[in-house]
Formats: sequence, C-alpha cells, structure tokens
Amino acid sequence: MKTLRDIGEDALIERLIKLVPQASGAAGPGDDCAVMDSGNGWLQLLKTDALVENIHYLPQAAPRAVGWKSIARVISDFAAMGGMPEHFLVTLALPPTLEISWVEDFYKGIGDCLETFGATLAGGETSSVPAGSSAVISIAATGSVRKEHLILRSTGKPGQTILVTGTLGGSITGKHLDFTPRINEAAWLVRHFKPSAMMDLSDGLGKDLPRLAAASQVGFILDEKALPLSSGCTPAQAIGDGEDFELLLTMEAKRVSALLEAWPTVFPDLPLTPIGHLVAPGEGQSLQGGWEHFS
Amino acid sequence: MKTLRDIGEDALIERLIKLVPQASGAAGPGDDCAVMDSGNGWLQLLKTDALVENIHYLPQAAPRAVGWKSIARVISDFAAMGGMPEHFLVTLALPPTLEISWVEDFYKGIGDCLETFGATLAGGETSSVPAGSSAVISIAATGSVRKEHLILRSTGKPGQTILVTGTLGGSITGKHLDFTPRINEAAWLVRHFKPSAMMDLSDGLGKDLPRLAAASQVGFILDEKALPLSSGCTPAQAIGDGEDFELLLTMEAKRVSALLEAWPTVFPDLPLTPIGHLVAPGEGQSLQGGWEHFS
Repeated sequence: MKTLRDIGEDALIERLIKLVPQASGAAGPGDDCAVMDSGNGWLQLLKTDALVENIHYLPQAAPRAVGWKSIARVISDFAAMGGMPEHFLVTLALPPTLEISWVEDFYKGIGDCLETFGATLAGGETSSVPAGSSAVISIAATGSVRKEHLILRSTGKPGQTILVTGTLGGSITGKHLDFTPRINEAAWLVRHFKPSAMMDLSDGLGKDLPRLAAASQVGFILDEKALPLSSGCTPAQAIGDGEDFELLLTMEAKRVSALLEAWPTVFPDLPLTPIGHLVAPGEGQSLQGGWEHFS
Repeated sequence: MKTLRDIGEDALIERLIKLVPQASGAAGPGDDCAVMDSGNGWLQLLKTDALVENIHYLPQAAPRAVGWKSIARVISDFAAMGGMPEHFLVTLALPPTLEISWVEDFYKGIGDCLETFGATLAGGETSSVPAGSSAVISIAATGSVRKEHLILRSTGKPGQTILVTGTLGGSITGKHLDFTPRINEAAWLVRHFKPSAMMDLSDGLGKDLPRLAAASQVGFILDEKALPLSSGCTPAQAIGDGEDFELLLTMEAKRVSALLEAWPTVFPDLPLTPIGHLVAPGEGQSLQGGWEHFS
C-alpha cells in the first residue's frame, strides 16, 4: 500500500482536489491563499496553516515566540497575494498535561503579532490529543485585497527577472521563530512596482521557486552566485533550509533598475536582490533541496 | 504548575480571550460561530473545529465517514446560528506512514458532505506529525446569514420553553459518524418560528444547556421525563453522551403550541420536543455529565 511518504505533499494535494467540489474563486488551489470575490472591488482571502510540535517547533521553544510564529506565517501568505490580514481563528489540539502558563504565553505571542499587523482574533476551538501525541496548532484567517492589487504565483512570464527580499538560509538558528512577515513591503510593491507573480518562501527556494515556475508554466535559471546569503550560510543552505518567509517575486526586466533604485529609499534595511530569470517552459534548470512534509 | 486537565476547556478559553485583540463582531467568543458584518444586510460566519484521532474517531473508523463528520460538525454550527455554509478550508496533520487510500477516502467523505449541503472547498494545508502521534484534522469555514435571521445562544429569557430536535444519547454506536446537520430545520425555524436562542448539541445536553443558560444569564429547569431518548438509552446517557448534533433552542411559551403543530407537517420524521424552561438567574438547577475536553 502506498503511503504519504511515498508521494509527498504536492502530489497528494493534486490527487485530493479532484475528489471534492471546488470553490470558483479567483485563484485555484496551490496559491498562497484562496481568493473569493466580495463583489465590490474587493476580494476576500482565506488561508489555513498548521504548526506541529517537534516538526515546526520544539517543546522547549518559548511559547510566546511559537504564538508569534503561528500568526506571522499566515500574515506572510496574505503579503504574498498583495493583501492584508483581518480575522483569525485559532484551533488548538493539546495534551491535557500541558501547563496553563504555556498556553497563556502562547496566546500573548498571538496577541503581539495580531496587534503589530492590525488583525484580530474572531474565535477558536480547543481539543485534547492523547498522551504522548504532539500538539497541533492550526490557524485559519480571512484577509482582503483590492482586485487590482491581487498577485498570483501563476502569472510569471519568460524573460522576467526573479527577485527575493532579505537574506536566505539558516532560519533554524532563530529567525524561524521571530521573523517579520513582509506585509509592508508587499503593500508598497503592489502600489508602485506590481510584481508579475509573487509567493512567500516557506519551504525554501529549492521547493518554492519550482512551484512558482510550474504554476506559471515556465522554466527558470537561478544565478546561485547572486543569492543573498544569511550570515554564515552556504548557497545550498540558502536554497534548502526553508522558513525564510521572504517574498519571491518576478518582474518585467525593464522595470527592475527603477525598482532597485526606489527600494532602498523606502526599505533601507532590507535587501532586494535579483537572483535569476524565468525562461520558456521546458528550458532552464531544476533545483534540489527544500522542505518535504512527509519525508 | 496547573495543567489544562486542572481547569478544563471553558475556563481556559475565558483566560485566553483576555490576552489578544478581539474582533468587534456581532457575537462574542463562546457562540457557535464568530459573526462579522458584511455591510449589506448579510453577516459572515466564521468557524473552526478539530477532529483528533483516538479522541473523535478511531483509526479503524471508515475514512469516508470521518470525512463526512469533519464537515457535518461545522455545518451543524452554521445551522445553530440560523446560517448557511459557504467555503471550507481543510488542514491535515497526518503521520507519513498513513496510506494514501485513507486520505483519498476521507476526502470523498468531505466531498459527499460539501455537495449535500451546497458548500465548496476553498483550500487547505497538509503537514506531517511525528511517528506515533495522533492525526489531527482541522476544518475552518465561512458561512453567511441575513442579519434578521441570526440567532445567538445568549438571548434566552426566563419563562421561555426549551426544545430539542431529534433524540438524544448513544451517538457512539454510529450516529456520531453519519449524522445529518439540522441546516434545513434551522432555516425553516428562523423564517417561521424564530427561536429566542439556539445552539447545537455537540458536548451533550449536560454541558451545552448550562452553556446556553450562562450565556443568556438565566437559569433552567429540565424535565428529565420529557427527554426524547435514542433507542436503548437512559436519561443519563441522553444528558451525558454528547455528539448528538441536534438543535437546542428556546422560544416564547405562547408560540410553542403553534410551532409543535406546524413542525410535523414540514419535518414528519424528526421529533421536536419541549424539555424544560428557562428561569430567573440564580434559580433552577444544575446538570452533571457531558464531554470535558481535557479530563
């Protein structure tokens, strides 16, 4: 019998979505958020995410940081679509032996992040897991984006430049728990230099760039020497580590120099780096590395 | 150090909601769904829920039934508010050793239930759990209700009659996996005999009736002899078993006889039974039994 480990997450999702009635939204499954028309020039974004103990965080991690991370991951997905977060639902499956103080500190971290990005808690649900099972934190949220600001990952074109915010690699040393979702940067981009395609880097460039290219039905060529490396990281780590939560975007080549001139006047502390370009489908390269959920 | 087992779910939620910015919706935390104003005579309902392996279903349960249950539980909450379901997000935290066929059959059950109730899948997320951990299924969904049809659990008044649909108790023998959420019954009620308060029975009458009374700041008197018992069940089981997924509602006493006359002409196969009445706060009785999540 085939198991999840045998086929991996992307192939699993491809099989599953054929089995149920799909919402006729503006974005198909596979984008960072689901997109529903609100009928007045606005689109509603819907997103769900999960954090699993011993997979996404360790039991000894500071609960307040885990709370921040759980919300920030979802806000990063709203940023990737050019939108803003609104209302959050928090679902907790926790062992009965967990200390109350852990859950309270976790919620303080949730509050920190919601407040920082102007979002609110709308509700939640708690359940127990059997003794010995890992805790599971699931976050669902609504967001919004004006129709003309929506960015998909499926709309990149051959010849366009690939860029990335920040530096890549080494998030496990700390950044994965206290990163800042690039919501302000995305909001500026959609207004001044709207990318042709965008997504956030959660599973690592090695996993996510091929996803963007596949969704856009194009190939890509990565300039490994150009990669903005986090301090002490190799290119292989920048490609494979995952949990960077930076923006990966594509843009018409002729607009890139103006973008790179304007960017540091608005975001002086955050690099924006061209790292390659899209090419015709079937051309270009492949990439190894990145996070595989069921390996 | 105090643990979740020491205080239970309701006290935990009361502590947590003070720690984060709350959405200013039409219903506070503690109702079946969160309620957001859509600004055009409609309200958006938001709901999240979790099913945990070995808690809400056993590994040997038919996956298609587990899929149905995961969606039907949430639709039951929309029914409880007088609303209808719209878009669903499915978050799965699964062991890598799970067979693909299990997940596919589970998704078929999700599809069955979405199709039956006119809802759609908008997106989802999958993650792994460590070997030996229970699988966790989390469902988030949006729904809608016209402003004038919204029913809360906090608006019951002393003197009003308490009624319940269906029969209670013994759901573990099968009903908990293949129940029909009372969405049609709720839609008829809000249009013809709008209840003063309503909720769905998920944790058992012994847990949920005190919740409705507390939210409405009233007491209650239950007529145990009047309880509609499922075949072979005792009153203690009807009060304590949980997972009935019937509607618990309250109504002005003078409208009850007309309701009981009209009901069987529309729903001939489903009992609707008066089981007691609300009384002034501080009066009435208490109840034992029902499902405690962290015991």
